[in-house]
Amino acid sequence: MYDLFYGDNKMKQPFEDKRYAPVGVFDSGVGGLTVAREIMRQLPRESIIYFGDTARVPYGSKSKETILRYSRQIIHFLESKGVKAIVVACNTASAFALEEIRPEMKMPIIGVVKPGARVAAETTVNGRIGVIGTEGTVGSQIYTEMIHRHNPGAVVLGKACPLFVPLVEEGWLKDSITMEVAKRYLASFQESDIDTLILGCTHYPLLRSIIGEIMGDRVNLVNPAYETAQGLGRLLEEYQLANDGKGENSSASYRFFVSDAAEKFKNFANSILPCEIKEARLIHIEE
Amino acid sequence: MYDLFYGDNKMKQPFEDKRYAPVGVFDSGVGGLTVAREIMRQLPRESIIYFGDTARVPYGSKSKETILRYSRQIIHFLESKGVKAIVVACNTASAFALEEIRPEMKMPIIGVVKPGARVAAETTVNGRIGVIGTEGTVGSQIYTEMIHRHNPGAVVLGKACPLFVPLVEEGWLKDSITMEVAKRYLASFQESDIDTLILGCTHYPLLRSIIGEIMGDRVNLVNPAYETAQGLGRLLEEYQLANDGKGENSSASYRFFVSDAAEKFKNFANSILPCEIKEARLIHIEE
Repeated sequence: MYDLFYGDNKMKQPFEDKRYAPVGVFDSGVGGLTVAREIMRQLPRESIIYFGDTARVPYGSKSKETILRYSRQIIHFLESKGVKAIVVACNTASAFALEEIRPEMKMPIIGVVKPGARVAAETTVNGRIGVIGTEGTVGSQIYTEMIHRHNPGAVVLGKACPLFVPLVEEGWLKDSITMEVAKRYLASFQESDIDTLILGCTHYPLLRSIIGEIMGDRVNLVNPAYETAQGLGRLLEEYQLANDGKGENSSASYRFFVSDAAEKFKNFANSILPCEIKEARLIHIEE
Repeated sequence: MYDLFYGDNKMKQPFEDKRYAPVGVFDSGVGGLTVAREIMRQLPRESIIYFGDTARVPYGSKSKETILRYSRQIIHFLESKGVKAIVVACNTASAFALEEIRPEMKMPIIGVVKPGARVAAETTVNGRIGVIGTEGTVGSQIYTEMIHRHNPGAVVLGKACPLFVPLVEEGWLKDSITMEVAKRYLASFQESDIDTLILGCTHYPLLRSIIGEIMGDRVNLVNPAYETAQGLGRLLEEYQLANDGKGENSSASYRFFVSDAAEKFKNFANSILPCEIKEARLIHIEE
């Protein structure tokens, strides 16, 4: 299970006092809600504190140095809220920040890249894997590197799809224009005979039906959100941090914080989450 | 000329010592370069210090409070560089921040909204004006308010076009998909009989040919960048701040600062500016 935990500082002693603490989840905005949704489904006892950096969204076109600075600020905030583990629910931040931040961490931290890369590496039959994501994620080559750890011979083909995030945020999920944009972005995969395609941005599962229609049944779509929630569950068990449901307040609670436009975030969240959220609180993450 | 200057604190005394100082121009990213380009063309003696907030771009979907905080940080930075006047080369920041900031300013400040609104108000024949821009700009109703100051009877119809900025940044300027997106956004104007359309986002002049093709010759497209440069020229004359070309270093110089991804900014700038820029310097605007 080591490969699901990026920390060098593996703390083998149990943290029973933190068993009932929430998990911290963060993303540049609303995309990471697809990861929070999977955690809610797969680990229904776990409480979540979610942070969406809506004042600085998107991350995908920004530099490594900037994403690293933003990630540190957010992790500091989540730590101040007493979380027991952190999920970097953003591919760009996972790609740019996770490796650098791991030596600084006092708790388990998991990103979305490695779980998605591993399942793709293990399930491909012909060894040809496509990755779609932001400019930052694709340019970083992080998926290629992670896939090669499990499957050194795999051929990995990346394609940045910068319009997918604004199309999702415009709400054009099943739309003729989105279909045209997707056809253009995915054209490079048509001749490359991939059998697996990683949806390497947390917004992209919301375009799954269009992407699936273009790629056809022959290509397996990997949603890292699903694998990440599974990995989180194993990580919490390993560190004796999983909520056993025996605490005083055993029911899971979900709290949401954003750096801007809280009402808009709340409405989007309520359109995709299985539960009704009542509030997203605004904080100034820069301070 | 009062209407081109948003400041209450009109300083009637001359500032001859500042005559040769640069003008500060800022935007959320590259869009404001269309304004800088007009200043270079119309006021070739004026030096420019440009700041693009590429670490936090875009502004169009963010709240008034956040845009105000970002604008104050940037103005503080430009003041520290010794500018003699400030151009808010971003419609969203002009809409959300200018009125609040004016009492705090010690120098002339001009935005892009008022000059564009005035020319539209004065040139419309049938009194029906369309405005396209970001969610923030259109939602603020700032163009309606400014147009009504000059033409109280005008009917102003707004439409937010959130995909235009990412399409420009993708470089799909003359493209069939951009044409389809533009047709959908502009459809609401087809039956409304407007004779004037304000390109109310500094990115949009780069889509002028597509927008013009859809709207037809009957509709006059207003580019606020052009009017803003004209307004700046009048403002500098009025305050005796215009560079008369008699200073020791009389040739104009242009300096560019960004909060992220300096190389990418430089390449974009060199694709649209009339001069070659050699450097865009990275600074941390939050600090």
